[in-house]
Amino acid sequence: MGFFSRDIGSMDDLFVHTLRDIYYAEKQIADALPDMIAKATNPELKQALDHHLGETRNHIERVETVFEMHGVKAKQVDCPAIDGILKESREIAGEVDDKQVMDAALIAAAQAVEHYETTRYGSLIAWAKQLGRNDCASVLAQTLAEEKAADETLTRLAESKINLQATS
Amino acid sequence: MGFFSRDIGSMDDLFVHTLRDIYYAEKQIADALPDMIAKATNPELKQALDHHLGETRNHIERVETVFEMHGVKAKQVDCPAIDGILKESREIAGEVDDKQVMDAALIAAAQAVEHYETTRYGSLIAWAKQLGRNDCASVLAQTLAEEKAADETLTRLAESKINLQATS
Repeated sequence: MGFFSRDIGSMDDLFVHTLRDIYYAEKQIADALPDMIAKATNPELKQALDHHLGETRNHIERVETVFEMHGVKAKQVDCPAIDGILKESREIAGEVDDKQVMDAALIAAAQAVEHYETTRYGSLIAWAKQLGRNDCASVLAQTLAEEKAADETLTRLAESKINLQATS
Repeated sequence: MGFFSRDIGSMDDLFVHTLRDIYYAEKQIADALPDMIAKATNPELKQALDHHLGETRNHIERVETVFEMHGVKAKQVDCPAIDGILKESREIAGEVDDKQVMDAALIAAAQAVEHYETTRYGSLIAWAKQLGRNDCASVLAQTLAEEKAADETLTRLAESKINLQATS
């Protein structure tokens, strides 16, 4: 990020900046997920996180496709938001001393990640449409649908199994 | 947060820890909103953010009520996630050099805040119910409904006005 410079003068600049932000975020998430999978105990939770790791790798490729469609270089910018969300996830995991409570904490951490991505893809899609880039919006919308589905899967798993086990 | 200690051994511990996390987060949001209101240009956006500042002050009181209902001391723990989300919001605002693009960036920043709160309140409510604290869940659900409504208001404003102005 260019501190003390004001580089964003148009909606196109804001779109590209936020695309670079989510590009960094998706890569950080792909790096963080294997540790979360290793810490999970419930096999369905492990499987859901592992499935989402595969999706996340596709999301990185989709962001690269959108950079290319929009004619800009694929580049990351620092994203303090995802850094903070993942830092909190690591810290909480470091404080939990029970396998089933850990699973509940991991679901909450993964859902915080999903919600961050959901809000950023939501903004990116709205801006892409406004900029006349329905083609980019359409690619980003595929990812948004997967993020929402991942969040719903985690909610179902939490409510039907993980939270029950952790309080039993 | 107790680094290198493992203080969370039960779902009750996880619930109280996350309540302390959102208590800190709500206070940070109440501190950050006046600056966002000052930077906004569109009167409806200013009004929506100002309305949400009032709600946020109520949310802080509601969290204090839940601490009391649950018989634990109202206390904050560091929340690197909200620190990161608000840091990113300040950084992006520092880079935008156009009033209407600033409004679009502020909406996206405020929505990232709403989504973080939505996910945390969602987990807290599910855990409170599981712990047999439907009374706490009910108070927290009032806040969750307001967070979701604030997010929807911002989406409507973005799509009906702000993004149109910023690309015109």
